[in-house]
Amino acid sequence: MNQQDLVRELAEKSATKIVMVVADGLGGLPLDPGGRTELETANTPHLDSLVRRGTCGSSIPVLPGITPGSGPGHLGLFGYDPLEFKIGRGALEATGIGFELGPHDVAARGNFCTLDSAGLISDRRAGRIPSEESFAVVEKLQGVRIEGVEVFVKPVKEHRFVVVFRGPGLDGAVADTDPQATGVAPLDPQAVTPAAARTATVAQEFVRQAREILKTEPKANGMVLRGFAGKPRLPTYEELYRLRAAAIAVYPMYKGLARLVGMTLVGHAQTLDQQIDELAKCWNDYDFFFLHFKYTDSTGEDGAFEQKVKRIEELDRAIPRIESLQPDVLIVTGDHSTPSLLKSHSWHPVPTLLSAPTCRPDGLEKFSERECLRGGLGMFPAKHLMLLAMAHALRFGKYGA
Amino acid sequence: MNQQDLVRELAEKSATKIVMVVADGLGGLPLDPGGRTELETANTPHLDSLVRRGTCGSSIPVLPGITPGSGPGHLGLFGYDPLEFKIGRGALEATGIGFELGPHDVAARGNFCTLDSAGLISDRRAGRIPSEESFAVVEKLQGVRIEGVEVFVKPVKEHRFVVVFRGPGLDGAVADTDPQATGVAPLDPQAVTPAAARTATVAQEFVRQAREILKTEPKANGMVLRGFAGKPRLPTYEELYRLRAAAIAVYPMYKGLARLVGMTLVGHAQTLDQQIDELAKCWNDYDFFFLHFKYTDSTGEDGAFEQKVKRIEELDRAIPRIESLQPDVLIVTGDHSTPSLLKSHSWHPVPTLLSAPTCRPDGLEKFSERECLRGGLGMFPAKHLMLLAMAHALRFGKYGA
Repeated sequence: MNQQDLVRELAEKSATKIVMVVADGLGGLPLDPGGRTELETANTPHLDSLVRRGTCGSSIPVLPGITPGSGPGHLGLFGYDPLEFKIGRGALEATGIGFELGPHDVAARGNFCTLDSAGLISDRRAGRIPSEESFAVVEKLQGVRIEGVEVFVKPVKEHRFVVVFRGPGLDGAVADTDPQATGVAPLDPQAVTPAAARTATVAQEFVRQAREILKTEPKANGMVLRGFAGKPRLPTYEELYRLRAAAIAVYPMYKGLARLVGMTLVGHAQTLDQQIDELAKCWNDYDFFFLHFKYTDSTGEDGAFEQKVKRIEELDRAIPRIESLQPDVLIVTGDHSTPSLLKSHSWHPVPTLLSAPTCRPDGLEKFSERECLRGGLGMFPAKHLMLLAMAHALRFGKYGA
Repeated sequence: MNQQDLVRELAEKSATKIVMVVADGLGGLPLDPGGRTELETANTPHLDSLVRRGTCGSSIPVLPGITPGSGPGHLGLFGYDPLEFKIGRGALEATGIGFELGPHDVAARGNFCTLDSAGLISDRRAGRIPSEESFAVVEKLQGVRIEGVEVFVKPVKEHRFVVVFRGPGLDGAVADTDPQATGVAPLDPQAVTPAAARTATVAQEFVRQAREILKTEPKANGMVLRGFAGKPRLPTYEELYRLRAAAIAVYPMYKGLARLVGMTLVGHAQTLDQQIDELAKCWNDYDFFFLHFKYTDSTGEDGAFEQKVKRIEELDRAIPRIESLQPDVLIVTGDHSTPSLLKSHSWHPVPTLLSAPTCRPDGLEKFSERECLRGGLGMFPAKHLMLLAMAHALRFGKYGA
């Protein structure tokens, strides 16, 4: 029996409430060998107090040594094996700009490129045209009309955009049209499986009309399409856990990921304080609350050790307000580590705390990577965290008699 | 997605270098309850220094409680699930004597036995004839000729030998001919699947000619064949990890195992110092170096606790020379435990250290079974070690966006 089937079998309704705070990229590294990580440097009295009443551990997002992107990182925390459930590149890009994919959609990532007079690619990124220029070009592409299909073209950044085809019988199994080289023409969209034949035809027609529309553009007179993908089929929080789930996030990517598992997006908060205002406001309407805090990741990506420390302390100061709502289970974790030292996501385990009246004391005093190694949750795959959340919320029946 | 596919997708080329020192049978047990293991008794200042800069853990070769042979033990360390990738007995025996199996080979283990005048087995081990006698008998068997097939017969030890059939269309699915009893005749080689029909016929012909050749032998006038197996199909280090891998081992078994995953055998070292000479010599030609140290296992097998301690100290003294080459990732582990107390391989987790600039400090001070329990790698399946090696060598891309 896989985890999803097990969860479906055991999940029960209850009045308990679970809050999962995801501090993106929470885990870190010391700048000097043997030194302290960002979390170990931060002054976190409220998180430490939760640790003393809770149980801690180290979460492995995918597998030891594997560095996840935001998609697999969050799928794991939401209880979906990130090696089993995958979000195609096009679908993730659409999700990342807040485009809500429907069940009949196929999304692809687009790159504008420059074609020479013979139709061959002379610049694979159209001179990296600035976003404003690119957005104007994207606007022109709204003129594409394809019979029986709705077409959405949305800007991303610089030469990048997303195209979404919506209509019955579409399928993501279409090959990239990017030849990954200059001096050659973009490839024609080709179906990889028979089921995608119609999608390939639609994409071909899109490219044909787009070429006509773009032919007078100085730089962005061509395009390549990559990562065709439909909306991933993920069972929802309601189906799996029987939880009414709310997502309180600032950035489109995380809102999108939450939507993919059936969470409801709540509010339009721009700051952590506003996020907690929203949490309080919708407290009675949901059972599960995903609260996403971005800045532990972005400061890590910037290599800004001290700023990441400050962001962790900002999160710590918000904890009492969350606690005042008296959640039955309060989890603080991350979707992966983003050590300032590496200026990127990393594979290192993520310090994780779970606080609930049913926690068995593990003797820890402080929320830190080092302490979490000795915690009661041990080293565990991220996909197991929701099982623990459900258990401590007393929302699981017994398995077997 | 399985581990192999994941690795193939994420592996990137890099200039970084990984050294994996396998101290065979490294893990141990105290002689007296509550006492110290061999590793805990040894004076290991250099390993301890690596521990302080690195991250440690306990490697589980197959599953908790499962004692591996050398084959599964090493496959795990090399990143192949030993329950999924299996090396047939015949193939392992051939590998162990340094016979390099080709893709069209089928190998079997042979035992000489004594047959009575009625052709029934009177001694299943031919009186355990000494190796020298046995080798002479093996020599006579070189006279066997079978149309369309090359036949290799190689001595192993005492009554044991290996036979390898080489030719197109051979298959390992042939049943053992050992009736596991005296007073009965050896079985005729029989195909277990239709694909092995020709192999069974070849084996029957081999047995027929061998009986004729051996009929005047006083003891070894018969034989049984067991463990028919082809070369296991293992993706190579180059295919999987994009690593140019070198193996520096003294004993044929470990050379053979390394060859099976596509490592290049380097040098003809007979001592640890010579092995490190070879390591230094080929440093620029490879990315990954498997260095096998046998004597922590053989002393354990002998029940020689003090000797095992001394061998661990010998390994410790070699560490600075390895470090002077400045590997990006230096791993010290074992393929299994061999406690002197048990005089055999065991199932106990194997103390493992990984040292790299990207290690998160775990606060350990000494390389020992007890300390490793509290290490940052936790308790992990051996097959995940290569994932960590690749990650710390910065040779993996990100999984998902």
